[in-house]
Amino acid sequence: MTENKLIGAAVVGQSGGPTAVINATLAGVIRAALSDEFKGTVTEIYGMRNGIEGFIDGRMINLSEIFTKADGTTDEDKLTLLTQTPASALGSCRKKLPDPEKDPEFFEKLIARFKENNIRYFFYIGGNDSMDTAAKLSRYVADHHYEMRVIGLPKTIDNDLPGTDHAPGYGSAAKFIATEVQEIVRDCAVYTVPAVTIVEIMGRDAGWLTASAALPRVLGGYAPDLVYLPEAAFSMEEFFEDLRELFKKKPNIVVAVSEGIRFANGTYVGEADQSGVKDVFGHKYLAGTAKTLEQAAKAEFGCKVRSIELNLPQRCGAHFASQTDLTEATEAGAAGIAAAVAGETGCMIAILRDEKADGYSVYYKPLNVQNIANGEQKVPDKFLNEKKNNVTDECLRYIAPLIVGEPKIIMNGGIPVHFVFD
Amino acid sequence: MTENKLIGAAVVGQSGGPTAVINATLAGVIRAALSDEFKGTVTEIYGMRNGIEGFIDGRMINLSEIFTKADGTTDEDKLTLLTQTPASALGSCRKKLPDPEKDPEFFEKLIARFKENNIRYFFYIGGNDSMDTAAKLSRYVADHHYEMRVIGLPKTIDNDLPGTDHAPGYGSAAKFIATEVQEIVRDCAVYTVPAVTIVEIMGRDAGWLTASAALPRVLGGYAPDLVYLPEAAFSMEEFFEDLRELFKKKPNIVVAVSEGIRFANGTYVGEADQSGVKDVFGHKYLAGTAKTLEQAAKAEFGCKVRSIELNLPQRCGAHFASQTDLTEATEAGAAGIAAAVAGETGCMIAILRDEKADGYSVYYKPLNVQNIANGEQKVPDKFLNEKKNNVTDECLRYIAPLIVGEPKIIMNGGIPVHFVFD
Repeated sequence: MTENKLIGAAVVGQSGGPTAVINATLAGVIRAALSDEFKGTVTEIYGMRNGIEGFIDGRMINLSEIFTKADGTTDEDKLTLLTQTPASALGSCRKKLPDPEKDPEFFEKLIARFKENNIRYFFYIGGNDSMDTAAKLSRYVADHHYEMRVIGLPKTIDNDLPGTDHAPGYGSAAKFIATEVQEIVRDCAVYTVPAVTIVEIMGRDAGWLTASAALPRVLGGYAPDLVYLPEAAFSMEEFFEDLRELFKKKPNIVVAVSEGIRFANGTYVGEADQSGVKDVFGHKYLAGTAKTLEQAAKAEFGCKVRSIELNLPQRCGAHFASQTDLTEATEAGAAGIAAAVAGETGCMIAILRDEKADGYSVYYKPLNVQNIANGEQKVPDKFLNEKKNNVTDECLRYIAPLIVGEPKIIMNGGIPVHFVFD
Repeated sequence: MTENKLIGAAVVGQSGGPTAVINATLAGVIRAALSDEFKGTVTEIYGMRNGIEGFIDGRMINLSEIFTKADGTTDEDKLTLLTQTPASALGSCRKKLPDPEKDPEFFEKLIARFKENNIRYFFYIGGNDSMDTAAKLSRYVADHHYEMRVIGLPKTIDNDLPGTDHAPGYGSAAKFIATEVQEIVRDCAVYTVPAVTIVEIMGRDAGWLTASAALPRVLGGYAPDLVYLPEAAFSMEEFFEDLRELFKKKPNIVVAVSEGIRFANGTYVGEADQSGVKDVFGHKYLAGTAKTLEQAAKAEFGCKVRSIELNLPQRCGAHFASQTDLTEATEAGAAGIAAAVAGETGCMIAILRDEKADGYSVYYKPLNVQNIANGEQKVPDKFLNEKKNNVTDECLRYIAPLIVGEPKIIMNGGIPVHFVFD
């Protein structure tokens, strides 16, 4: 930690896939930067359009101007709208920073941009790749004696960032998934004919999102019968066996699967369609994981089988966001400003559970981003049941506090109002 | 209209596909039946499990008992929970009544069930097929001198029931679609690379649901760029041309399509997969309409193309129902009881717009169900734009009032609480 007071401008960007609360973190950064506490130090706050990719091309907007009213106070109405708006309002990119040794020009151009605007604070909201950007950039500026504090702010619906108890974006996606799958369970229960409904949920390597489909089980609601995560090898025979057992008890079965489930040999269940090969039933598959299972179960049981991909709405369902998630996303943004002004750099703001508190309570802590950038936090083995076809109550008790609370959404004529940068 | 006071029990059933508000209509029927106004006439209210199919097997529950508290008053807490629960709480069926001449036994069995419990009022909540049931049954009991009043209560997300201005279930589905598609539009706008996102919306023959995706356009929000309904013949070449024009202006294009769009020759766009034939590009399609368009646009433009099926959540999204829809669904149920007690039979309760009122206002009117049973209300030609690739503002002004208002949902731990009959 450096101890000198660093006065200069700040820039904030958003990167990677959007979430329902990524703009809440942006709002937290802006509000803190404009606050009486920090505005003497953070002279100006800029926003990168489309992350580092737009920034290097000079595409930047002045957030201080946009969010300050004529009377000099912060425009809370605009920040409130920004907070309830899904998907990266500044735009995003998927740019992975090059190796400074291999592409020094890129970094020289970046430094020139920083100097142009006296940027001394750099905030990057994103997942693993964005933390890699923060790690590389903080090393580079230190090595090249440009004093700038670099802070990563966590964002990922996948909840796979290590170091942090959970990441903003996950709680809202989990709440949306739990709610929609519960509705699907109810919808599928109305008929008496045997039927299997397979719901495909995002998550290529980590099953946190799929696990959340089971939440209604510990909340007195209606959960899917089977839950398959990518953390356990998937077996078609065991899947059929699980269905056979359930059919003895009920006609309607609902199954939640991660898009990333794999067979024991490592092949993705939904991969057949991409490689163009035919499956064991001689069909060519063009769809994803749930569609593959649909075809397989239809061939095995001859009953009605349906597949549903929850798809993009999972990550942008701001109309039903978790208030807990929104609050934490906002607070993480503010904690980023506070940490940077206090001298932190090369770190990510982690959200940690206060284990000593009565009930659920969190605090924010800057962690070395180098240790986070390339890790991945998967669902631990103890969170899967013995048969690996569901998650444990312990798993659900971990997730449950993250989906609590409903924000008051500002509506117009029946749909949520979104904020847009012109 | 008969004028004698008919004292006896009532039975209510739900049929066809579920909606977000079908239980609100059920709650409206129950509340009215138990009210001081009608409980002297309607001696008991029963519920059919799984519609007429369960009823004929004697599967019936006593709703009067379930919804009356120990002190004799109506259990409003239970009715509130029932109202916010999606999907037919009594269970549903897809049974189409046989022709009484061809299967007189079926009807004799039904009459025996009615007599067993002195059932004199019959309420059936459903869409076209359910209205056919109400029509056949009302004719049959009249012909066979069993005095029973038969009332159809409208329910369909498709909004294709003739006679009524709109049907309960449509407003909530429209609100959910408008909200989710707006979120998808925002999600897709974050990157700068050319991309097409195709959202498939329910509606085999009528495009009302797909039209609702465009609602944000008249509500100051963000709507899809193209909207294709089944009411207009679909042309792949015109679709490509529409995309080409849009790509001149923006990189991200969002398209809303009805699952039921057809080529000029009458073939469903998504049909190729079912027949197993190969498409013009030599690929075999296994998926639906949006998937077919995804493959076609990918081959034509070589850019990122993604398809999203909104699927079942469209019809069971009670967590974000329209308060207007919920209120009308409930009132239609109550209007059914009032009409039946007043002597109406063989009718469906229609919801009609009071054109003389300031702003949006409706009233309920029993219409001859015979005229409704086999009709279908499609999106009129005047509601499509000239190029048939979007809907008009007039169309959206018709839909807009139906999605207004958000109910206060009773939650537990972050998910909505659902009512269940044990």
